[in-house]
Amino acid sequence: MKAVSFSSANHCNLKLEKNLTKQPTTTNPIDFINYQNQKLLNKKHQFPSFSIKASKTTQTPVTQKPETPPLVVVGSANADIYLEIDRLPKVGETISAKSGQILAGGKGANQAACGGKLSYPTYFMGQVGEDAHGKLITEALKNGGVNLNYVRNLSEVPTGHAVVMLQSDGQNSIIIVGGANMSCWPEKLSDEDLEVVRNAGIVLLQREIPDSVNIQVAKDLREDSAYTTIKAAKSASVPVILDAGGMDAPMTPELLNVVDFFSPNESELARLTGMSTESFEQIGRAVIKCHKMGVKQVLVKLGAKGSALFVEGEKPIQQPIFSAAKVLDTTGAGDTFTASFAVALVEGKSKEESMRFAGMAGVLFVLVGVSWSKDSVARAAGVLHALNT
Amino acid sequence: MKAVSFSSANHCNLKLEKNLTKQPTTTNPIDFINYQNQKLLNKKHQFPSFSIKASKTTQTPVTQKPETPPLVVVGSANADIYLEIDRLPKVGETISAKSGQILAGGKGANQAACGGKLSYPTYFMGQVGEDAHGKLITEALKNGGVNLNYVRNLSEVPTGHAVVMLQSDGQNSIIIVGGANMSCWPEKLSDEDLEVVRNAGIVLLQREIPDSVNIQVAKDLREDSAYTTIKAAKSASVPVILDAGGMDAPMTPELLNVVDFFSPNESELARLTGMSTESFEQIGRAVIKCHKMGVKQVLVKLGAKGSALFVEGEKPIQQPIFSAAKVLDTTGAGDTFTASFAVALVEGKSKEESMRFAGMAGVLFVLVGVSWSKDSVARAAGVLHALNT
Repeated sequence: MKAVSFSSANHCNLKLEKNLTKQPTTTNPIDFINYQNQKLLNKKHQFPSFSIKASKTTQTPVTQKPETPPLVVVGSANADIYLEIDRLPKVGETISAKSGQILAGGKGANQAACGGKLSYPTYFMGQVGEDAHGKLITEALKNGGVNLNYVRNLSEVPTGHAVVMLQSDGQNSIIIVGGANMSCWPEKLSDEDLEVVRNAGIVLLQREIPDSVNIQVAKDLREDSAYTTIKAAKSASVPVILDAGGMDAPMTPELLNVVDFFSPNESELARLTGMSTESFEQIGRAVIKCHKMGVKQVLVKLGAKGSALFVEGEKPIQQPIFSAAKVLDTTGAGDTFTASFAVALVEGKSKEESMRFAGMAGVLFVLVGVSWSKDSVARAAGVLHALNT
Repeated sequence: MKAVSFSSANHCNLKLEKNLTKQPTTTNPIDFINYQNQKLLNKKHQFPSFSIKASKTTQTPVTQKPETPPLVVVGSANADIYLEIDRLPKVGETISAKSGQILAGGKGANQAACGGKLSYPTYFMGQVGEDAHGKLITEALKNGGVNLNYVRNLSEVPTGHAVVMLQSDGQNSIIIVGGANMSCWPEKLSDEDLEVVRNAGIVLLQREIPDSVNIQVAKDLREDSAYTTIKAAKSASVPVILDAGGMDAPMTPELLNVVDFFSPNESELARLTGMSTESFEQIGRAVIKCHKMGVKQVLVKLGAKGSALFVEGEKPIQQPIFSAAKVLDTTGAGDTFTASFAVALVEGKSKEESMRFAGMAGVLFVLVGVSWSKDSVARAAGVLHALNT
């Protein structure tokens, strides 16, 4: 996706979401995915999203400071408007779509939703407009058990949205409106915002909000970890994972310097380093460039080839993919992978275990697309994990 | 707009809107439009819509059978997604919009909203999906004082929507998703639906829902008027106005035969008759073809040239336009014109008076775009009307 530039000159009135105090809890039975479920696999128009509509069952959002240090996702929330068309319209032309669907998305919201699906205490920090799309996203996240106390509602900008024109030849054309994702962020995050980040077990960032916000979050954690006595008493600092997905503006070393993990896919790695990433050796060389830019751990998503974690000065850890019989759509699988890796890591799993867990969650997402139920992927991944370890 | 064809094979679960029982009433002071209001006129991104967002003040929707026979609008409800872009994206390309906005629209909802704005008891009969866009539209209509007891919420189809790509050279390209406007209408409207139509003071139709629904409504009124004793006791039958706007499929004589007024603009008249409509004489000849197709009264919207009502066998009534100093956008002005004409007519004004009133409302809409407040156009039109009569 291209860099989105928005003026921040608008009047940016904000309201914090405060409607999360009471949520019914429903425990779903284990909902294991059947790979041969033709109803799911053949269902038309499987658009990637963390939720088609507000789920009928809801999880309990985190309202009190949880004992388990939560996953905190700082990032984007988007309404993805999918249009299935034969071809793009010409200038001045009106055409009819074969179908259309509006889904909650955005890399930040997707990753937070995944944390909620994995039943891990998850906070989402982001911005939406006071409009129908903002409601769509916050309801979906709330029903997914994500804490929204740090979501800002802006009255003067629309919720970020993307119009995805799916053409019959398989090509997509996309128009992005950055909206609340890209405008009206405070120049300096409040102490309240930074406090929830400091109390996190792990922090997830992406690149669909301004770099300046990401830098502020990650830098504060570094400084907090180095200088405050409270933090010094803790056994470890809060790890920060930066997913490379989002705008394709050059990566600032200032950001790479302050994150613990950087997670690009092959094409993002190629774009950011200006190097070829076709073979594993080439990927290794591009990763060395990332190390030189300041990040010690690079988790590369390799699509059908799985993933690889490069820790500076160590032998890379490779994780082959759990083979998928039928791929519906890979969009969103990367978000599931990164968020699942973060959850596994913060739950104390080793890096190898975390990669395996994330790979399983990712492939299940690809297999079942949006049809995954709230708990199915988490549980299926758990079951598969148990079977394979 | 092109004809939109949708399969009706989906599971079409519906729920009637039943949340209209209590609404606070706020009486706005007279909010007269200042033509020199540069803040309004120069405001960027004046997208046509009946409401930008849910209004802060609300009108009282009609909940009990009103003593005044209401305006009943049967038609479309749409979410209009405006994207301001430099140029259309190419195949496979991702671009950023300069701005974006999602507004409630659709010819049916626009016309119903206008009835509400004019403080006339108004019912809207239409279909929306159970999604964020459906809520956007129903909230805007509800806050505009429109009764939604006959709006169906469909769970399996999206709310109709249109993506309008506004290009920097002034050209638009539009992709329409018919959704709930075009699918899952009952084969036969219920007695409850037909009853509200029979009790109307006037009925407004357009062509953004299936013709079969429009035919059923208008035909039922004709038959009801001709045969039932209840209706026979009334002084007159319920007039039906068909706005020609919407799909450009050929007009069926079956529909033209059963409406009292047919209201096209010049280009719709040309398209439907296959005749030229550049001069007033040519328009007159095209109208004669409409008379032959079965409709006795043709109200032609002539844009900057005003309007003309052709009653078969009579001298046409011409209404010049109230001159507009600065035109923002004419989209939506036609809906305002048709709905205002209907309201004036049902309130007992003569055809000439009704055309003058509608012309004033239309030009005010063009002047102030979406910035019109709930009551401003109605009141301004009323004041201007008083000044000019």
